[in-house]
Amino acid sequence: KSKEEQEEEEEEENEAVKNDNAEYDDEGNLIICQLNKKRRVTIQDFKGKTLVSIREYYTKGGKELPSAKGISLTEEQWSALRKNVSAIDTAVKKMQSRIM
Amino acid sequence: KSKEEQEEEEEEENEAVKNDNAEYDDEGNLIICQLNKKRRVTIQDFKGKTLVSIREYYTKGGKELPSAKGISLTEEQWSALRKNVSAIDTAVKKMQSRIM
Repeated sequence: KSKEEQEEEEEEENEAVKNDNAEYDDEGNLIICQLNKKRRVTIQDFKGKTLVSIREYYTKGGKELPSAKGISLTEEQWSALRKNVSAIDTAVKKMQSRIM
Repeated sequence: KSKEEQEEEEEEENEAVKNDNAEYDDEGNLIICQLNKKRRVTIQDFKGKTLVSIREYYTKGGKELPSAKGISLTEEQWSALRKNVSAIDTAVKKMQSRIM
């Protein structure tokens, strides 16, 4: 293989791993979305376990890093939360109508 | 109205407010679900704002109380998370298939 061909292959591999336009935080965790300026939902691989983190970030030395404020859910815990999304929606709406 | 009628009405009101078989934690927050033994999703009214909390509980003096470990989302933040549920699902599945 020529050097050019090799470089092209490596580039393709990186693209596949980095999965298109995905954004990563300064620790290499995949950013799913921002909840506000400081809060993010990220996905990470922690010792072979997938974690869904909902966490506040802080800036240190020009880097944005995840703080202790937040929670990291295992796949099972995320799945339990996911099953209750409409129950949460309903409860939030009910609470709102009671407040207003 | 008779005393019995009044009591019946009050009971109905309480039931309506307490919304059937709903469970509440020792601080009066509505429990939506358990994520594991210690982690819960709850809804609370904090100074007129609805918060969705995903938080770890600890036991003190026979009471189960929400700890600092976790995060409370405003309605807007919950809504942002909610919109990204399938993106999270997809990313978790992708991560899993890469790990295994």
